Amino acid sequence: MAGTLYLIPTTLGSDRWQDVIPQYVSSIARDTRHFVVEDIRTARRYLSRLEMPVPISELHFELLNEHSTQPEVHKLLLPLLDGLSVGLISEAGVPAVADPGASLVALAHKHGIKVVPLAGPSSIIMALMASGFNGQNFAFVGYLPIKSNEREHRIVQLEQRSRDENQSQLFIEAPYRNNQLLSSLVTTLKPETLLHISCDLTLPTELTLSQSVKEWKRKMPDLHKRPSIFGIHSA
Amino acid sequence: MAGTLYLIPTTLGSDRWQDVIPQYVSSIARDTRHFVVEDIRTARRYLSRLEMPVPISELHFELLNEHSTQPEVHKLLLPLLDGLSVGLISEAGVPAVADPGASLVALAHKHGIKVVPLAGPSSIIMALMASGFNGQNFAFVGYLPIKSNEREHRIVQLEQRSRDENQSQLFIEAPYRNNQLLSSLVTTLKPETLLHISCDLTLPTELTLSQSVKEWKRKMPDLHKRPSIFGIHSA
Repeated sequence: MAGTLYLIPTTLGSDRWQDVIPQYVSSIARDTRHFVVEDIRTARRYLSRLEMPVPISELHFELLNEHSTQPEVHKLLLPLLDGLSVGLISEAGVPAVADPGASLVALAHKHGIKVVPLAGPSSIIMALMASGFNGQNFAFVGYLPIKSNEREHRIVQLEQRSRDENQSQLFIEAPYRNNQLLSSLVTTLKPETLLHISCDLTLPTELTLSQSVKEWKRKMPDLHKRPSIFGIHSA
Repeated sequence: MAGTLYLIPTTLGSDRWQDVIPQYVSSIARDTRHFVVEDIRTARRYLSRLEMPVPISELHFELLNEHSTQPEVHKLLLPLLDGLSVGLISEAGVPAVADPGASLVALAHKHGIKVVPLAGPSSIIMALMASGFNGQNFAFVGYLPIKSNEREHRIVQLEQRSRDENQSQLFIEAPYRNNQLLSSLVTTLKPETLLHISCDLTLPTELTLSQSVKEWKRKMPDLHKRPSIFGIHSA
């Protein structure tokens, strides 16, 4: 009988795992010996904090990141096909959403392997909760284009869709470009459009705020290198 | 100084809160005396399980559901403006996503009240994790139309968007109509389109499976009255 692929959330960068990880999730991790991880160093550090019952050196780690090839992903299935359970851990938050883990999950389904998602912190869903925007209809569209004319075009497109379909639009940027994105947003969006920013979620410096573009313009926060989720909604 | 609005997740229907609720979230709930809830009975039961340090009868509950008027939502702000912290709890999972709680969050931002989202189970994000679908670009679109011709039109539209934009499309149905929705899906979608179903998440009867429409047709699960999230992705 094949093993189970457990999708194990990790923190959003905080050391205090008890803030965001349920007790059951930590006990599943403690029972697991084979891990597929996006970054071995952060995964080891996280599992050390969970107080694994065996030395970290006795655990098996396989890497799955944006450089992994399809044959390499295939090889990650082997322990599962041998009947062992495997834990998938991304660099931050829930795995297999905005990281390469989804390719292993897709392959697991093709081979009839049971996939068990576990509850934990998702910065996307926490930003949506904190926004007060429509959560009956929302989209997360990942990164916006880097080139300024393409980016502005995309911002206008998202604003229009949020109005036409009453669909909240969430997106991200590489943290060192957050301030540029915020500048593009306040110059491109209509003054009445609502803009939400969730920044440093679960950290002591956490900020969550929804207000009109006009209000954001009065006082712009410094988001440089701070992990942030942006959301817009236009009525 | 105004109080804080804590967005407190609850379980997805399981009694075992430790499976999905982090320890810190339970401690925030234990420190709170004022709650705004979607359903008073389920909120009381949940808080009893969390072992509140005071009798449940000494807690303050205010209702916020789909019948609440805007003036009623305004009144819910009063304890916050008086400096008291308030916990928002929905009927299942994280609050203020697919429930009326978002209106209180939106109003809190207008009054400069701090909003703190807490980590917990979101059936939408857990289904996305379990799907193996693209999570860099996804939409949750709520309920599909009930009338069969409108519903089929909408299904075709979602399938097309998932292909044109490489955007995974997630949606739900009232649980007693799940089997009808599944029938519409397998007759309307292309045979090669991938369909994901996450059903009874976190319960002993949990099912998560992604496969082509052609494969679903061979063996249709009985989803009647079982809370489910549906997802499609067309390549």
